[in-house]
Amino acid sequence: MQANQIPEIDPKKVADMIFTLGEFGAHSGTGVWRTAFSEQWVAAQDCIAGWSREAGLEVRFDAAGNLWARAEGTEGGDAIVSGSHIDSQCPGGRYDGALGVLSALIAITALKDAFGPPRKPLELVSLCEEEGSRFPTAGFWGSRAIVGRVRPGDCDNTVDISGISIGTAMANAGFDPAQISQAVRDDIAAFIELHIEQGPFLEDADLPVAVVNAITHIRQTKVKLTGQSNHAGAFPMDIRCDPMAGFAEAVTTVIDHANALGRPAVTTVGKCSVDPGGSAIIPSSVTFTIDARHPDPKAALELYKTHDIMLSDIAARRGLSVETEILLDLPPCLSDPTFLQAMDRAAQAASIATMHMASGAGHDAQQMAEICPVAMIFVRSEDGRSHTPEEFSTIEDIVAGIKVLAGTLYQLAY
Amino acid sequence: MQANQIPEIDPKKVADMIFTLGEFGAHSGTGVWRTAFSEQWVAAQDCIAGWSREAGLEVRFDAAGNLWARAEGTEGGDAIVSGSHIDSQCPGGRYDGALGVLSALIAITALKDAFGPPRKPLELVSLCEEEGSRFPTAGFWGSRAIVGRVRPGDCDNTVDISGISIGTAMANAGFDPAQISQAVRDDIAAFIELHIEQGPFLEDADLPVAVVNAITHIRQTKVKLTGQSNHAGAFPMDIRCDPMAGFAEAVTTVIDHANALGRPAVTTVGKCSVDPGGSAIIPSSVTFTIDARHPDPKAALELYKTHDIMLSDIAARRGLSVETEILLDLPPCLSDPTFLQAMDRAAQAASIATMHMASGAGHDAQQMAEICPVAMIFVRSEDGRSHTPEEFSTIEDIVAGIKVLAGTLYQLAY
Repeated sequence: MQANQIPEIDPKKVADMIFTLGEFGAHSGTGVWRTAFSEQWVAAQDCIAGWSREAGLEVRFDAAGNLWARAEGTEGGDAIVSGSHIDSQCPGGRYDGALGVLSALIAITALKDAFGPPRKPLELVSLCEEEGSRFPTAGFWGSRAIVGRVRPGDCDNTVDISGISIGTAMANAGFDPAQISQAVRDDIAAFIELHIEQGPFLEDADLPVAVVNAITHIRQTKVKLTGQSNHAGAFPMDIRCDPMAGFAEAVTTVIDHANALGRPAVTTVGKCSVDPGGSAIIPSSVTFTIDARHPDPKAALELYKTHDIMLSDIAARRGLSVETEILLDLPPCLSDPTFLQAMDRAAQAASIATMHMASGAGHDAQQMAEICPVAMIFVRSEDGRSHTPEEFSTIEDIVAGIKVLAGTLYQLAY
Repeated sequence: MQANQIPEIDPKKVADMIFTLGEFGAHSGTGVWRTAFSEQWVAAQDCIAGWSREAGLEVRFDAAGNLWARAEGTEGGDAIVSGSHIDSQCPGGRYDGALGVLSALIAITALKDAFGPPRKPLELVSLCEEEGSRFPTAGFWGSRAIVGRVRPGDCDNTVDISGISIGTAMANAGFDPAQISQAVRDDIAAFIELHIEQGPFLEDADLPVAVVNAITHIRQTKVKLTGQSNHAGAFPMDIRCDPMAGFAEAVTTVIDHANALGRPAVTTVGKCSVDPGGSAIIPSSVTFTIDARHPDPKAALELYKTHDIMLSDIAARRGLSVETEILLDLPPCLSDPTFLQAMDRAAQAASIATMHMASGAGHDAQQMAEICPVAMIFVRSEDGRSHTPEEFSTIEDIVAGIKVLAGTLYQLAY
């Protein structure tokens, strides 16, 4: 591997591509609303396919809806892959996901132009339905299909808010759900994903780019506390079994616990519903989610165990019953150490100051880790914003991220 | 006034009438679903009108939908009125409201049969849409119309969940919304309402009947706490402005405060919504209701002031903004002391053990207090249940309540 080959990156071309792609599904001024298999998303994928062909890459769509663009390797072998997704939140920004796809295309094109064909195959991938913003249970759809984690029946059973199945949406966009198992790949040697940070760590550190050494363990648990509904006026406080009081204690307890643990532990209660939900009725039950994350495998399990103990204690003490269901459980994903070294060398060669950090958000790289070693690069987010039209990263920071990516791909593929 | 005249009450007739009325809108086995101006409600009102005519009472419906049945007084003057409502929750039980209407009819009939026509006019009223269960903003519709608290435009602006205005519903049931101001009464000398307790105090005290000395102050406040939405994974705990954390502290604080004050203070958070409400998103805002009640006028105002201070403190300390809006404010309603004495005498004459207590629930009597002195009688509720098909009171307790009512009406009207 050679460290010191960083191709030139044209900031104007980067800006042009970001703004051109942002026109597909443009929303709320600076945002996009571009859900998987929608007209806007299909047109955006086609746009990237067109740019890839212009760059001399071999373009194909797989059965799941992922777009692949390949520079063949002179020595063959397993592919070095980079990419992310262009589906968005409703609405989201121009950068979340899309920046990773464009950066991979720009980096691969620049490498080819500067250094000719790679030794190993070098591929761009634009993955399908990372967000789960159209099909809530289909997050990481494209990367799950690649690693063989789409189950039989998923195409029929996975539906959007209007009741359309993902299989129907795929068929409408020209993909054959019956062929989805053909999206599986077993010939990938590395997956490198560039993404906006979506948090404030780089801004705090006054750095443009981070090398991501791990993706956090993410567990989302649905909790239902059940008590006894009664009249808000006629039923005295001292004999109530009020699940709202238990819920409030649970929220305070888990949030205070994450604060006490300190960074990088995070715990969020973002969703709750009250039954029956009348202002003059003591609720019979409160159902809510706890999203708790820690990138250290041991600390994460300790955190979840502590939550279980806390919930049981609160319920027992208050005469409530508690039911829990794990909705999502993504174990931590550690980056490949040799990739981290390659990224550090690339950053040094490009004179870009970086830091190492864990990702608190989930990413396609977590899925791809099932079939190959992975690592990620973060680009600074203004005010740490994401999942909003307001998300923003400067072209200078983005170019710095692309240089680290290109230098890393050079070491892996040339 | 004479104290010792309690007419005989036939338990079998009481039971028959309860079960016959319960057939109109029968629901969930032992419950009813009988909303204002529905087919079931109109038929139930007609049933009571029929029974009233059989009892020799002069029956009429007013423009608001209230049913009146009158025994003329030999000496004329302002009327002594008793009644309640037969509209229900969705579903509710057979007793909430309906028992007060039936008890008034049974008591007035028994008094007439035993003692002939009263000196003062004696009237039964079956009030319309007390619950607000069909038209959420039309609670106490019938009693508000009687006291002149229905505003111009209310008939058009008040709509049910399917968008039908209360004016249209009235017209469909044969009432003329343009005439609603004619429902106003200025010739009522007393309003006595019998109701199930809806709480556990009588059961705790092992007593069948209570004399209600006050109806609590009820204030419902909508509170919105606004913070800063961010990514649940990428945004660290220590710099969050999480309105969910503030909401939890607010719930705990107001509930703990009511517990510390002790009976009869009650505070309930029965309703909340989270925006945007994603399990992986720190909320931007949480909106909830605080229902807080105290029957003592001074203590109630002190309670509300304390809540305001608590909310401001929590918001300021956590960097949240707070908005509050009073949705409902029903000042406490003190019973007329001479009526309380009459009730005590009636109970003594009938050898019924009673206690004095405040009502924690709102009732039509609170509205009627605008135009005349009022008082209430409570009948024991099994397990303190109400607003459910499971609500239940024994025929023995109900007969005891009717005897206290009849003895009270005797003192006021004979």
